[in-house]
Amino acid sequence: MSVVYGGVEGGGTHSKAVLVSAEGHILAETDGPCTNHWLVGVDNCINGINDMVQKAKIKAGLDPDTPLCSLGMSLSGGEQKAAIQKLIDDMKERYPKLSQSYFITTDAIGAMATASDYGGIVVISGTGSNCKLVNPDGTQVGCGGWGHMMGDEGSAYWISHMAVKTVFDARDNLVKSPHDITYVKEAMKEYFQVSDLMGMLPHLYRNFQKSHFAGFCRKLAEGGSAGDALCQHVFTEAGKALAQHIVAVLPKVHQDLFSGELGLPVLCVGSVWRSWDLMKSGFTQVLSQAQAHGFSHFRKYSLLTLRQSSALGGAKMGAQNAGASLAMDYSANTNVFFSHTFNQ
Amino acid sequence: MSVVYGGVEGGGTHSKAVLVSAEGHILAETDGPCTNHWLVGVDNCINGINDMVQKAKIKAGLDPDTPLCSLGMSLSGGEQKAAIQKLIDDMKERYPKLSQSYFITTDAIGAMATASDYGGIVVISGTGSNCKLVNPDGTQVGCGGWGHMMGDEGSAYWISHMAVKTVFDARDNLVKSPHDITYVKEAMKEYFQVSDLMGMLPHLYRNFQKSHFAGFCRKLAEGGSAGDALCQHVFTEAGKALAQHIVAVLPKVHQDLFSGELGLPVLCVGSVWRSWDLMKSGFTQVLSQAQAHGFSHFRKYSLLTLRQSSALGGAKMGAQNAGASLAMDYSANTNVFFSHTFNQ
Repeated sequence: MSVVYGGVEGGGTHSKAVLVSAEGHILAETDGPCTNHWLVGVDNCINGINDMVQKAKIKAGLDPDTPLCSLGMSLSGGEQKAAIQKLIDDMKERYPKLSQSYFITTDAIGAMATASDYGGIVVISGTGSNCKLVNPDGTQVGCGGWGHMMGDEGSAYWISHMAVKTVFDARDNLVKSPHDITYVKEAMKEYFQVSDLMGMLPHLYRNFQKSHFAGFCRKLAEGGSAGDALCQHVFTEAGKALAQHIVAVLPKVHQDLFSGELGLPVLCVGSVWRSWDLMKSGFTQVLSQAQAHGFSHFRKYSLLTLRQSSALGGAKMGAQNAGASLAMDYSANTNVFFSHTFNQ
Repeated sequence: MSVVYGGVEGGGTHSKAVLVSAEGHILAETDGPCTNHWLVGVDNCINGINDMVQKAKIKAGLDPDTPLCSLGMSLSGGEQKAAIQKLIDDMKERYPKLSQSYFITTDAIGAMATASDYGGIVVISGTGSNCKLVNPDGTQVGCGGWGHMMGDEGSAYWISHMAVKTVFDARDNLVKSPHDITYVKEAMKEYFQVSDLMGMLPHLYRNFQKSHFAGFCRKLAEGGSAGDALCQHVFTEAGKALAQHIVAVLPKVHQDLFSGELGLPVLCVGSVWRSWDLMKSGFTQVLSQAQAHGFSHFRKYSLLTLRQSSALGGAKMGAQNAGASLAMDYSANTNVFFSHTFNQ
């Protein structure tokens, strides 16, 4: 087998694998289910990764029994050192033909490695949410990424939860809804296939599936686009929450990251960003307020999206970790979709 | 066997069983673990109940193979009809010697049945929280009781969560803590046996145990009593949240419930009420605001606590359901611990 590097992007709902040549050419790509080990457990996580990568080898016309040079994984839930080491140990033991070496990083860092080698801020909003500042010197500062029990503000899970909670609170007369709940309530009944609020309990407890619960967000995006005020409200709140993550790391941003042509580069990763139009007012409002109250050197920011899976950045980091280097054309990997310059 | 009725109080952390004679005399009491079927599953729930009741039979000197006349269960998580019917069906099939008839109600209604046959408001704050108005005509209006994924405001779980979340948000610079976090952070490390925030993840996900997480509330109560401002703050917020549940059902309270000697009777159930001193300012503030803004016929309220397990009310309702009646001395079952008359 020629020299081949593998990369994985592991999300809370979907995952991807990619095989890359030393020249940076993509040889094959495959898809798979959720590989967040906190959500599906270690066994499902590493089985899912093995399946995707082995399928990719076959798709690329490679011998599945020949290990890759390296496998770099950019995983949602890939933060805690002890848990990561266990994943790697289990993979080595169970799938010796998968790869010669393994490397795991978080979804945020894998995404940043796909976009740039200079740094910026990554804001993930998919099933869950997370924010990471990577300075030009490589130092990192995080905000969020603790999962749905301790945050996930601005994520699809959080948006779905806020909408459902609004319906519960209105039913209970505990909190008045800021807008009519009819659309959200009916959409909830249809999506979760329930006839009343009591029917939601199995979806919240016994049969809770984070990615299924978060999937309700798509219906809310449809409602928002069609003009429903409550749907628009929850996305505006999500925009505020995501911008608040950026504000949280602003004091630690290295001066040089403000001064490029794009201003502060913010890499936006995850499916919720497809609803940018619905989030824009809340997002821009929070950043403008922060800029006006003490970050005067913060003059411009640009929002970027990836044109490639962050599995590619994972592959790059996995190769680096194995002592090799992968050629990357960063400008081809990203797209600027919004820029804003503050009035001084 | 003489005529014996059984009752169960099922909580999110502890449970109790009681056996009662037709005259209302308590023959035996036993304790057990959490029997909330949402938290521990149907099998653990019904096994736990069977164990407690069979032990109580032996303790009372009764033949364990002779079924009780009835078993009335007052269960946290005992709301959803289909789930309740399944519990009863499974118990009948698996434990034919346990009881001749079965009845399940919620922890709130079981508590109210222990305190009064006239009605009032029950506010539960134990592992979880719940509020139920029972009017003199027997009609009920609920607020909350949806569990930790969709509420539990003011409960031990919620208090623990708020304290832990404050530490996470301070670490992330996402939300500034209103008070110094040192005590809460150190208490958290000690209680959960972790060295950093990352170590909390298994407690929140893979090994999440609601009752263990909620148990951290006890350490916060200790901190509050010793003068820690953040601990005091989370209990004040809990007091507000619990009072807000009462405000939510106020518009549905029958006129007659306001006019007794005690004013509106509020039955306070669950271990969090032991920290009443810490919750008092938030609780009274919210009720006073509500009274001042539109509930002028609401002139006085009294907070009552149970001197008996709500297993007793469960036994009463189980007997009623089986066509029998249990003598109850309500005045001996409750205690008034706080009364407030509004300035008119």
